[in-house]
Amino acid sequence: MTRIFVPLLLGVAAIWAQPEIAPDRRVTFRLDAPKTTEVSLSGEFLKGSVSLGKNDSGVWSVTVGPLEPEIYNYNFTIDGVKTIDPANPNVKTGSTPSTIASILDVPGSTPRFFDGQPVPHGEIDTHWYHSNSLHALRRLTVYVPPGYARQPQARYPVLYLFHGANADETAWTRFGRVNLILDNLLAARKAKPFVVAMPFGYGLPPGFPRPAGAGAADNAALFSRDLIEDVIPFIESQYRVETGRDQRAIAGLSMGGGESLGIGLNHLELFSWVAGFSAALRPDSFASTFANLEGANQKLKLLWFGCGSDDSLFAASKRFSEFLTRRQVKHVFYESSGAHTWIVWRRYLNELAPMLFR
Amino acid sequence: MTRIFVPLLLGVAAIWAQPEIAPDRRVTFRLDAPKTTEVSLSGEFLKGSVSLGKNDSGVWSVTVGPLEPEIYNYNFTIDGVKTIDPANPNVKTGSTPSTIASILDVPGSTPRFFDGQPVPHGEIDTHWYHSNSLHALRRLTVYVPPGYARQPQARYPVLYLFHGANADETAWTRFGRVNLILDNLLAARKAKPFVVAMPFGYGLPPGFPRPAGAGAADNAALFSRDLIEDVIPFIESQYRVETGRDQRAIAGLSMGGGESLGIGLNHLELFSWVAGFSAALRPDSFASTFANLEGANQKLKLLWFGCGSDDSLFAASKRFSEFLTRRQVKHVFYESSGAHTWIVWRRYLNELAPMLFR
Repeated sequence: MTRIFVPLLLGVAAIWAQPEIAPDRRVTFRLDAPKTTEVSLSGEFLKGSVSLGKNDSGVWSVTVGPLEPEIYNYNFTIDGVKTIDPANPNVKTGSTPSTIASILDVPGSTPRFFDGQPVPHGEIDTHWYHSNSLHALRRLTVYVPPGYARQPQARYPVLYLFHGANADETAWTRFGRVNLILDNLLAARKAKPFVVAMPFGYGLPPGFPRPAGAGAADNAALFSRDLIEDVIPFIESQYRVETGRDQRAIAGLSMGGGESLGIGLNHLELFSWVAGFSAALRPDSFASTFANLEGANQKLKLLWFGCGSDDSLFAASKRFSEFLTRRQVKHVFYESSGAHTWIVWRRYLNELAPMLFR
Repeated sequence: MTRIFVPLLLGVAAIWAQPEIAPDRRVTFRLDAPKTTEVSLSGEFLKGSVSLGKNDSGVWSVTVGPLEPEIYNYNFTIDGVKTIDPANPNVKTGSTPSTIASILDVPGSTPRFFDGQPVPHGEIDTHWYHSNSLHALRRLTVYVPPGYARQPQARYPVLYLFHGANADETAWTRFGRVNLILDNLLAARKAKPFVVAMPFGYGLPPGFPRPAGAGAADNAALFSRDLIEDVIPFIESQYRVETGRDQRAIAGLSMGGGESLGIGLNHLELFSWVAGFSAALRPDSFASTFANLEGANQKLKLLWFGCGSDDSLFAASKRFSEFLTRRQVKHVFYESSGAHTWIVWRRYLNELAPMLFR
């Protein structure tokens, strides 16, 4: 029987009776719902959905697995309404309702690269700042590596790291575990210490009134202005950071991957390290979006993007790699397994971080 | 028609199409659920619950109000299952499932005391620290007032502020708006600047294995050890703070109010300012819990506790006031309107903060 490693992160609901995780990592989901007529389960550990069965007490249940030690999203659909598991306190939220899900954390027999471990820990700072370019109060999340306060002479490089559509500036810390991944890499001396700035990735936030006809391009352009005119100056005024292009990296996932590749490759005067995770890219407009690649090989320290083979965006990343090859721009296209999930993005961060600022 | 003040806090889902808030502050809740047979709404703006009606397209709806400009929790019950509103991205979570709810923010015609406004903003720091007393990795949230970084010679007093049962160390910033309330008070010169430390308030976290027979007293005793042996030393090593008892305050709500009054009044060598909000108090054990009140009037700068008249804990606070009066301990019992909700606790913080460290 496999021993289960218990991540003793007592400040968060890391362990809960629901769903029930057996020692062999089979997972039983339950819903006490005598009045409902149909309950199904969907989740990142399933293709499609499975129906739950009801016992005489009105408790619905289903067992799946064994599952790999990972963090998964899942939902119940209760009489046709897709919602969370009301017995699990661990809920995924974002900037739109489409991202709402329950979170299942299946521990392994040893600590995973994103588990809290007895190593020095960095801190997460949340700032409210006034964006002059957007005329709005916005939030910004910042990871500061361990040792920052004890080394008042040190200056650090900065990774600007973006979330995906429907998420917000808390996603990389809440679901991406950026701080624990970097704490663990630093303790193992596998990465250089750097600050991570995680802004809210929408110029035109979901749910707010927007100008007639405004679309994805306007959203990206407004976000780019906020980043360059407000976020970077804010970080460079508030933190002891390096300000040269060789000390700035830019990365993001999905919508944020489109942003990081688009902004990064159009602003090589600002960034030498550019990355995209499962990036939302538009092959039809590569030539116009990436029109400024002259001299890129001289300026870029790294151009890295990855996508999972089960991701519907895989083809776009592959075509981007072909486009860059035709333009003779050096890059790494990391073709991995996996789908459009945080499982993949945590792994990509763990791959990328050791390469940065070397 | 009332003009609606739009809080432009674009980093969070402050505004969303669901529920629909009319200019007169009537609020319409909707659920697209053709297959369900019964949907009801409960919330802090209602006594009991109301049923939703279904139209021919299978959309359930109900309109309530007009509601006062406030932030309210609510839930849908869908065929007997209490859950969130799946069309609203704004979800309240905590350390147990009982706290899961959707959040409705009804704006007013002018900014409220807890709204983000164009004033200098403090920051929120999240720390992962190893608790030697609990042998666990825990999280701690810290509010740092605006100006802290620009005044490297200044030292600040500290308020230790606790959440209630079923919540966690993020509750005071996510639902209590502690940072925005203090930013606004500071901008209006109504409060002195101070640091706020918000630990995870459980010694025995919900959902974790616990020793046989362990109860509320053990939970409080373990939390007290973590606070005194780990949290306070951590804060005093990481921040430029004053370390005298006149520069330390302790406050909390509900379970955390029981903790703040219990710890504070038993540790007057550490705290001169002690407060409780809708505190969970046990009148039967006042004499033993608060056995060390000798000299309290000389040591205490302020003993303040409030409770709302619609709160089931009101009687306990009233009896605590009578107990203190019999012991001739000076105190302020603030009898307010309201129930056991964040509406009350935000107001109490706004009342208490201007009195501290004067």
